[in-house]
Amino acid sequence: MKIQTHKEHFTNPLYLESGRILEPYDLVYETYGELNEKKDNVIVVCHALTGSHHAAGKYEGESKAGWWDSMIGENKPINTNKYFVICVNTIGSCFGSTGPMSPMYPTDKPYRLKFPVITISDMVKAQRILFDRLGIQKVEAIIGGSMGGMQALAFAIEHPTFAKKHFILASTYATQPWAIAFNKVAREAVIKDPTFQGGNYDPKEIKKWGFSGLAIGRMCGHISYLSPDSMDKKFGRNYVETDGLYELFGRYEVERYLDYNGNNFVNWFDPLSFLYITKAINNFDATRNYDSLEDSLSRIRSDIFLMSFESDLLFLPKEMKTIYTTLKNINNKNDIKYINIDSDYGHDAFLVEYDKFAHYIKEELR
Amino acid sequence: MKIQTHKEHFTNPLYLESGRILEPYDLVYETYGELNEKKDNVIVVCHALTGSHHAAGKYEGESKAGWWDSMIGENKPINTNKYFVICVNTIGSCFGSTGPMSPMYPTDKPYRLKFPVITISDMVKAQRILFDRLGIQKVEAIIGGSMGGMQALAFAIEHPTFAKKHFILASTYATQPWAIAFNKVAREAVIKDPTFQGGNYDPKEIKKWGFSGLAIGRMCGHISYLSPDSMDKKFGRNYVETDGLYELFGRYEVERYLDYNGNNFVNWFDPLSFLYITKAINNFDATRNYDSLEDSLSRIRSDIFLMSFESDLLFLPKEMKTIYTTLKNINNKNDIKYINIDSDYGHDAFLVEYDKFAHYIKEELR
Repeated sequence: MKIQTHKEHFTNPLYLESGRILEPYDLVYETYGELNEKKDNVIVVCHALTGSHHAAGKYEGESKAGWWDSMIGENKPINTNKYFVICVNTIGSCFGSTGPMSPMYPTDKPYRLKFPVITISDMVKAQRILFDRLGIQKVEAIIGGSMGGMQALAFAIEHPTFAKKHFILASTYATQPWAIAFNKVAREAVIKDPTFQGGNYDPKEIKKWGFSGLAIGRMCGHISYLSPDSMDKKFGRNYVETDGLYELFGRYEVERYLDYNGNNFVNWFDPLSFLYITKAINNFDATRNYDSLEDSLSRIRSDIFLMSFESDLLFLPKEMKTIYTTLKNINNKNDIKYINIDSDYGHDAFLVEYDKFAHYIKEELR
Repeated sequence: MKIQTHKEHFTNPLYLESGRILEPYDLVYETYGELNEKKDNVIVVCHALTGSHHAAGKYEGESKAGWWDSMIGENKPINTNKYFVICVNTIGSCFGSTGPMSPMYPTDKPYRLKFPVITISDMVKAQRILFDRLGIQKVEAIIGGSMGGMQALAFAIEHPTFAKKHFILASTYATQPWAIAFNKVAREAVIKDPTFQGGNYDPKEIKKWGFSGLAIGRMCGHISYLSPDSMDKKFGRNYVETDGLYELFGRYEVERYLDYNGNNFVNWFDPLSFLYITKAINNFDATRNYDSLEDSLSRIRSDIFLMSFESDLLFLPKEMKTIYTTLKNINNKNDIKYINIDSDYGHDAFLVEYDKFAHYIKEELR
């Protein structure tokens, strides 16, 4: 499989939903497979909160493949022998696309808290402009899970004829207070840590000394990505050292897991990007500029494939079902499918339980 | 209803499960109603993590009644015309019973991190010794929700003939990793806040200046006490100020709720008590000193009344059901009942939805 990383620089202003302007800006993206002559064999994959454009394959020296490597590749469900797959790092993120730590033109200082609040629609708009520059006017499908699913849904509503089909996994039509609450605790932990320094932290220093607020934020996220059952299976009540049971700071295995993933997070993710992207997730509401969800979804002209996971406690199956029943009521003549996967893995299922759902995606893309 | 607050001082050592000794120690407790001559009309109510002995009634100047005021009183489900009700502040807590901020004998300095790790069994043992001193050798019932339910279950196993009936609400037989994970984030937020100062914080100063780590810990707790549905009902996607939607620190109502309850927590609860009691909860496992849950529960000689709440995401109904089926298998000839209450209120239901469950308790105590 041919993997390429690209960076595009845009000098035209990006008009944001907030009324503010991002100018200039960069988008970094990765592609897999070959674009055909007609430029119509494209599949767009959208990443989640802490994901990146590196969705598949391995670069030299990498120990871990891209985040959806099981799904994207030669003869994999998103088959790169047939399709040209693009995954774009969203604006606001920290893997090369313009975000809060990018220089604020015309200075060479980072935006930090002067970075504008961005929305899911802004992420989608930036991608649509990129595809335009690449000469791609129509794609086969747009696929995403979690925040990636929000982007796929926003694409379907806001650019109704751009993709033939949208795949929305483990996501929602509007972020509910339960998910906002998890993000709240995480955001609060970042902001209130003195290391944050009102956004003026030194990115090198925090990698060196750690950033416990960001670690705590990530731990909180990890709870919401798992489920009671998946934690039972993964950790049970196992203790790291049994004889530490009567020590105040002795740890259960689940605590060690959270420590490890929390503390490691600062090595690969930026605190300000975390704040801006969680804000974008909290603000996601497909009904905001419309009278109702029905009004909003009635703009859709593509096939829609919805998939939820039974134990997902971040974006509940019933939220996805609401999209489905609303679309069915509209009766827009497109192919609308909804599958709820029986899974114990919680929200993370779309990154873990490929056995249970990959064949559905493969079938739909055949 | 006659309410009295008492404090008992014990100079005998309390031998803790850890092998350590608490000596001397105090227990503060509240009583409602009148103890009869035979001293056998007693009902013991056990409080939860942040609860206290003040379970019912109002003292002069108090705006809010005790935490289970809807349940305890004249002609209420736990009827003080008939019963003498006792609620004891657990050791480790911060409302008058000996805890980490109590003086470490023979010094007059607080224990702080030198306080021994305590367990649910230790809390129960201390209460049993208190009842002994009061001349109470047998009680009608022991009732508790959440950590109070753990105490009730520990009473049933460890003092099998002391109470005729145990009521265990919204609780578990062993704290599962999902609940430990919530406590982990909360504990981590407390410990990593520089205000904590390795346990050497000034209790007056933190009340004055706040303690964001403790606030974040409490917020995390509040998520686990609610449910997606109860949050939808309480807050929806309402924004505090709609025109703040594109401000990075603008807040949803659910965020305001968490801010308020989090920041207020430091005014009435102690960070070290929080660490010690969450540790006791994490360590609770009715099977620890036994071969199995069956082995442990086979010690029980009393009636057992179990109640879970459908949307409880901290202690899941299935955990309570495990207690029920295990007890039924043992076939110990006592009256074993289990009711799962259909509720959207999550773990908090046992402190909120009295309409749905109070009559069951009333009926059982008639």
